[in-house]
Amino acid sequence: MAGNTIGTLFRLTSFGESHGSAIGGVVDGCPAGLVLDERAVQQELDRRRPGSTPLGTARQEADRVEWLSGVFEGRTLGTPIAFVIRNSDARSSDYDALKEVYRPGHADQTWEQKYGLRDHRGGGRSSARTTAACVVGGAIARQLLAGNGTTAGAYVSAVGGLAIDGIPTDLGNVWSDPVRCPVPSVAARMAEAIEAARAEGDSLGGIVSCIVRGLPAGLGEPVFDRLEADLAKAMLSINAAKGFQIGSGFAAAAMRGSVHNTLDQGGVLGGISNGELIGFDVAFKPPATIAKAQATVDRSGQSVTLQAKGRHDPCVVPRAVPIVEAMTCLVLADHLLRQRSARV
Amino acid sequence: MAGNTIGTLFRLTSFGESHGSAIGGVVDGCPAGLVLDERAVQQELDRRRPGSTPLGTARQEADRVEWLSGVFEGRTLGTPIAFVIRNSDARSSDYDALKEVYRPGHADQTWEQKYGLRDHRGGGRSSARTTAACVVGGAIARQLLAGNGTTAGAYVSAVGGLAIDGIPTDLGNVWSDPVRCPVPSVAARMAEAIEAARAEGDSLGGIVSCIVRGLPAGLGEPVFDRLEADLAKAMLSINAAKGFQIGSGFAAAAMRGSVHNTLDQGGVLGGISNGELIGFDVAFKPPATIAKAQATVDRSGQSVTLQAKGRHDPCVVPRAVPIVEAMTCLVLADHLLRQRSARV
Amino acid sequence: MAGNTIGTLFRLTSFGESHGSAIGGVVDGCPAGLVLDERAVQQELDRRRPGSTPLGTARQEADRVEWLSGVFEGRTLGTPIAFVIRNSDARSSDYDALKEVYRPGHADQTWEQKYGLRDHRGGGRSSARTTAACVVGGAIARQLLAGNGTTAGAYVSAVGGLAIDGIPTDLGNVWSDPVRCPVPSVAARMAEAIEAARAEGDSLGGIVSCIVRGLPAGLGEPVFDRLEADLAKAMLSINAAKGFQIGSGFAAAAMRGSVHNTLDQGGVLGGISNGELIGFDVAFKPPATIAKAQATVDRSGQSVTLQAKGRHDPCVVPRAVPIVEAMTCLVLADHLLRQRSARV
Amino acid sequence: MAGNTIGTLFRLTSFGESHGSAIGGVVDGCPAGLVLDERAVQQELDRRRPGSTPLGTARQEADRVEWLSGVFEGRTLGTPIAFVIRNSDARSSDYDALKEVYRPGHADQTWEQKYGLRDHRGGGRSSARTTAACVVGGAIARQLLAGNGTTAGAYVSAVGGLAIDGIPTDLGNVWSDPVRCPVPSVAARMAEAIEAARAEGDSLGGIVSCIVRGLPAGLGEPVFDRLEADLAKAMLSINAAKGFQIGSGFAAAAMRGSVHNTLDQGGVLGGISNGELIGFDVAFKPPATIAKAQATVDRSGQSVTLQAKGRHDPCVVPRAVPIVEAMTCLVLADHLLRQRSARV
Repeated sequence: MAGNTIGTLFRLTSFGESHGSAIGGVVDGCPAGLVLDERAVQQELDRRRPGSTPLGTARQEADRVEWLSGVFEGRTLGTPIAFVIRNSDARSSDYDALKEVYRPGHADQTWEQKYGLRDHRGGGRSSARTTAACVVGGAIARQLLAGNGTTAGAYVSAVGGLAIDGIPTDLGNVWSDPVRCPVPSVAARMAEAIEAARAEGDSLGGIVSCIVRGLPAGLGEPVFDRLEADLAKAMLSINAAKGFQIGSGFAAAAMRGSVHNTLDQGGVLGGISNGELIGFDVAFKPPATIAKAQATVDRSGQSVTLQAKGRHDPCVVPRAVPIVEAMTCLVLADHLLRQRSARV
Repeated sequence: MAGNTIGTLFRLTSFGESHGSAIGGVVDGCPAGLVLDERAVQQELDRRRPGSTPLGTARQEADRVEWLSGVFEGRTLGTPIAFVIRNSDARSSDYDALKEVYRPGHADQTWEQKYGLRDHRGGGRSSARTTAACVVGGAIARQLLAGNGTTAGAYVSAVGGLAIDGIPTDLGNVWSDPVRCPVPSVAARMAEAIEAARAEGDSLGGIVSCIVRGLPAGLGEPVFDRLEADLAKAMLSINAAKGFQIGSGFAAAAMRGSVHNTLDQGGVLGGISNGELIGFDVAFKPPATIAKAQATVDRSGQSVTLQAKGRHDPCVVPRAVPIVEAMTCLVLADHLLRQRSARV
Repeated sequence: MAGNTIGTLFRLTSFGESHGSAIGGVVDGCPAGLVLDERAVQQELDRRRPGSTPLGTARQEADRVEWLSGVFEGRTLGTPIAFVIRNSDARSSDYDALKEVYRPGHADQTWEQKYGLRDHRGGGRSSARTTAACVVGGAIARQLLAGNGTTAGAYVSAVGGLAIDGIPTDLGNVWSDPVRCPVPSVAARMAEAIEAARAEGDSLGGIVSCIVRGLPAGLGEPVFDRLEADLAKAMLSINAAKGFQIGSGFAAAAMRGSVHNTLDQGGVLGGISNGELIGFDVAFKPPATIAKAQATVDRSGQSVTLQAKGRHDPCVVPRAVPIVEAMTCLVLADHLLRQRSARV
Repeated sequence: MAGNTIGTLFRLTSFGESHGSAIGGVVDGCPAGLVLDERAVQQELDRRRPGSTPLGTARQEADRVEWLSGVFEGRTLGTPIAFVIRNSDARSSDYDALKEVYRPGHADQTWEQKYGLRDHRGGGRSSARTTAACVVGGAIARQLLAGNGTTAGAYVSAVGGLAIDGIPTDLGNVWSDPVRCPVPSVAARMAEAIEAARAEGDSLGGIVSCIVRGLPAGLGEPVFDRLEADLAKAMLSINAAKGFQIGSGFAAAAMRGSVHNTLDQGGVLGGISNGELIGFDVAFKPPATIAKAQATVDRSGQSVTLQAKGRHDPCVVPRAVPIVEAMTCLVLADHLLRQRSARV
């Protein structure tokens, strides 16, 4: 069973290679009668778009959503909502050198180990470009959640060694800040660090945090589809994600129960939401593709030196913020529908 | 869709309440012809059993696996393998006081918010006792993996603030150590810390780490069912787990790419195994049930003081080690079978 | 993906071999709060039991349901409902001769072609005995449906060449008639035909029809999970079933639209229920196992003559009636829950 | 869970409304490395196209497949294969009169009962136009099956009361005959009957039969996903299908075992293929939309007379032939992959 579908009742099936003719997706299971604000969907996609922040890649993609089905006279029909996003600015020739070489820290070799062949152009389907389909699907999910008063807001909480403290009270300025960090003083230093890394042909890791408010109590399915388990899976399916923690997370490992019990429990107990705020963090590694020359191997196993030519992000976390939000909304919308069958 | 099944091709469906007549499970999708060593399965279950380590709860459960189907003359038939474990030492009266009271940090209230009713005895299905079914399912998966030379070994890497450094070279003494920590000098201090917490009516959090060796390259399904995403989900479905990280994990968030690229990549790139060692960590919170008196609320919303009477673990990580291994094996066996359809 | 689970939201996972220690199942997804009448479940199982009708096999099985989980103080918990039925009267020695021989018209050879090995005793998992788990699952589903005023009633409408005309107005006497045919005059002749076939060491085919009343409009999922498609699958999964038709069925193939449009449309249009009566038929072949000597082959490919020794039904349709009802209820309960997500 | 996906390992997700901008689908799970003959896919789609036979609707659709992903340099990548077919000849104004009226025998009312709203234009998603996506998906499946030497050939075996006898030995002339009937003498009379029905503003039902050759033994998953059960579901998911039978089918209901055992068993025993020819039949009702005036109701419940204006088929079976083949191939390809996990 191939893994291009997420969700059980609210399901997104994603498709597309980075330099193929298009990427896109099909949302199946969105209830009928939802007034779909297509401009709001496009706006979320714009936030993920290459070029959306000056700290990202110089690659420009218009990334316009074209709707194919499932919406009629502004409302969802209950039928599959299919959409495509054309790949307009694919400079595949940037990748010609990669046809026979495996980039270190990339999926070039593993995809070939799996499938026996690969589309090398732009990383093919292993490219983070595929997350655009997640953002569209998540934007639909978000509009479904809004009807229940549920919101999900993500932000950058750490870049390199720079981090903010605690949970910010206001996320209002996240999208106007190029780093997507809600604390201006830290955001400025983060921006400097990213620019410095870029200048040196290097890259930086970081953390995206997310806060969910207004989620009804009772969501999450024991034993295996706990809310935090499905969130963890969704987050670890984002390119470059290396870790997930909810509530007290890894810090809890060093605590005593008498202390931990006094803390906020993260809005989820036993896998089920309790109606309170949910907060979690996702760790991202620094991008593997850097301008500096690196030693690697080619398809024949020979050692070669690789100097990347494509246009790449020196730090993925600013552009990962809308993706984390989207994946969160996909998980929550799914559990919102699943909960409808919990009682007679 | 209720969440009591994990896996797509190698699937475990779990059932049972802590103080009902039995817990158990059904493994569907185990290939035919596997020589099943039932004693080895029982041995793994014994490692999770209450009483398996002097550092755990005083509750004694024989936890004998009874096989109901799917095995004939020592081999798997390809049909569902059903098994039950009777609940022999259920002292439900310990829980009478909890019928009307919600324990802090427990799922009592959220399960009732979800379902409108609950089995309060021993935590019902939110009890960690349900993980016994995972251990049996995982033990079957492990025997399937063994045929491919794949092994998964977990151990305690941190308790409270005490932690070991790096990846241990030898896990040979894990099961003989009461803490399940492979570094004797640290293990001794961990054991002292756990006993001290117990003596004070308190509890401790910790970290279980896991190493997978010999996994074939090519396992893991893009985009959503990446190997690390499925591992994250499986780990976060374990009671009291609060975080997951793979490879460089949260530490990667503070790194530069030029440094990170030189590290071991955790055996997974782009969601697909590369044939090398895979290492990941799972953070566990300190048990919420402690002997100290705690303030909580009852079902009518009144504030009450609760002093737990049951027999509980002061630290879950020693007993979580076989569970982490089992969940790992379930995920890997599933992906081993999924990979069989990757190529024509 | 092994095929021992049916349903998406209301799911039955079945397990067990005919002469293993037990058969049973797990119902996952039954909403919480259903008052479960366990005696009514047992009653339905009794109707399927060998020995329930004098026209069936002489094999006697107590077929007592033992409940393992999911029910507390008479109500469903929302957790998996696991149950077992012990195999008490397994005379495996009846089947010793079949270890090396393939019975004609049976699954002996195909199961071995699939899995490379099989449990030859009593047909193993290919035995119709596995349908007992369906009856229990269906009985739970029926109680869920009853809360919506939905009923499903099946009956024998044809045996050999004998058939009743039209849809009977009253199914009240189905269970008191040994053939399970609601028209006494035809039922008597059917009984004679079955006894005559038995006396001659032969067997007879037949048709089970089913009527659903009170199903809410709007159930059924386009495009692939139409109500009639899921019913067809459920019916063709019953042992010995060879055909399914709904409403006008195969007769429609010979009609003109101007005539057909005047008929009752079978309660389903475009895959979705319209709130009216649903009627469908299931064709069963005559049992392959007959007392007469038959030519077949053994595992080495040699031609041999086989004279069956076990205790077998000369006609399966009387005992198939509760199974058809059960499978119907499983499908309808599943769609009842699925419909809860159709609208915002 | 919405029902727009079929298959477990080889999965087709279908989307699109009849008069929306496009219909299409995503095939996920097609193994990597399949040389995909896109012209052959288009040819199969051409066989289903309105206008493909003079006996069908006058509606003309170019029905060109546009490939979006999953294929690179002529080979499948193992990633989702997405495709769209634009709706070019949608004369939605033909359907304006249907906005407030429910056509008898159509899904207009039930879809509205389900979803609360509908796209009335051309039947929206309940239109048989959605089967074009099945034909594309099935054509991919067919190419996968061809590698195993498996073929599926369908044909019209009955129209109105006219039927052919037995299984034809040669299907070579099916596509050149306008009725898609392989017996020329019967085909001619069928064509006359269809034209006569059209001339009278009426319609005719019929039967499509299908023969599978070269299927490996061992395919089909007990207990619920038997090969015949999955075929039955796939066939009953085709618009206007009312019945399915395999092998001896409904005729078996009137037979004795001693006779039935001597027959060909239809290539499937106990739900599993035995390597021999598989034959089954699908009954189709006469199209409900006829030129004759019919009594019906409008959305407010008022009785009205409806005279259909659109361009419709007087008999669907000629155009159903490629659809039956496609659905067959989808089921077989799925089971071909599922079988890869049956043994260690």
